[in-house]
Amino acid sequence: MARTPTGAAVLQPEVTQAITDAVLHELAEQGYGRLSMEAVAKRAGVGKSALYRRWTSKHEMITAVVAEFSVSRAVLEDTGSLRGDLRVTLQAMIDWLTHPLFSRILPDLVAEGARNPEMAESARSSIGVPRRDRAEVMLRRAMDRGELPADLDVEMAMDVLGAPIYWRMVVRRAPVEPDYLERLLEYVLRALGAQDA
Amino acid sequence: MARTPTGAAVLQPEVTQAITDAVLHELAEQGYGRLSMEAVAKRAGVGKSALYRRWTSKHEMITAVVAEFSVSRAVLEDTGSLRGDLRVTLQAMIDWLTHPLFSRILPDLVAEGARNPEMAESARSSIGVPRRDRAEVMLRRAMDRGELPADLDVEMAMDVLGAPIYWRMVVRRAPVEPDYLERLLEYVLRALGAQDA
Repeated sequence: MARTPTGAAVLQPEVTQAITDAVLHELAEQGYGRLSMEAVAKRAGVGKSALYRRWTSKHEMITAVVAEFSVSRAVLEDTGSLRGDLRVTLQAMIDWLTHPLFSRILPDLVAEGARNPEMAESARSSIGVPRRDRAEVMLRRAMDRGELPADLDVEMAMDVLGAPIYWRMVVRRAPVEPDYLERLLEYVLRALGAQDA
Repeated sequence: MARTPTGAAVLQPEVTQAITDAVLHELAEQGYGRLSMEAVAKRAGVGKSALYRRWTSKHEMITAVVAEFSVSRAVLEDTGSLRGDLRVTLQAMIDWLTHPLFSRILPDLVAEGARNPEMAESARSSIGVPRRDRAEVMLRRAMDRGELPADLDVEMAMDVLGAPIYWRMVVRRAPVEPDYLERLLEYVLRALGAQDA
């Protein structure tokens, strides 16, 4: 979360953008553990004070940058049908997880989370919760339209949406054929008990 | 894979077991990158030569130990029904991923795989392929019994089996309620288009 500037200081958006890019590159190359504030500042062409005006710590900086990157890529679009919404959502998930930098960042953060409960909790509250809130909006819309069972297990449904993509692309690092999205869509519609399955 | 001993040397099983335990503890504590052959030997109470009699390198040792740990935990049991087989399979997956050591090891290996294509390929061939072969046996049994569609997309089905558990337990680090397994079972049966869904 960007802090409200104190006094007359104003945070320049182009500097924030340069820092954000630097954080993503350093995370992809060095990982959470080895990333240093010095290297981020140098890469962004700013002083370390520019970082500390925005975030109080390395942990806060990384969480904020990764959350902004990740939550902005979760879909809010209403296509009018569950099938259409799911197609857009699954494609956005694929794009998120195959992003050249992020595909190296996320596995490292998951490993860090296994060692560092504070990191895991920050990721949960700043990335997982807002992304799941968006997915829930989509599912409830489909329930309201009668496309999904009224007693849908929404919490489990959200796991089923994202999980197969992560498993295939990040854990298995298996190739993704051109028809992958449509094949997955059929599975997910069936799993959710959709009318249109 | 343990090498065939050369000459008259015989690999003592209790030494192999001590080394295996040491590898798993060192992997959980240090991760792939920082694990050293010296530390494994010391922890196992053996000389480094005992390691090199079994494996040619750190990479080969880690792959073999993690593969043995992981593949032996994939289910081959035939309970007589898809629902029964899936329940045993999903429970085994939960046990595998929540093992006190392995729950710290796997995320680190996945992160290593994102940086190290050789590691990713070793994990795929020595862990992923044999585990998926076992899952495929179970699915084909159910297809033969008429419990699953004859045109089941088997390759995608195997992703759908394991993925939600990994996503919840390893990526999200979300709590697992007592009814989790049964709720997941319903989702998986529906996703596969099972007769018994």
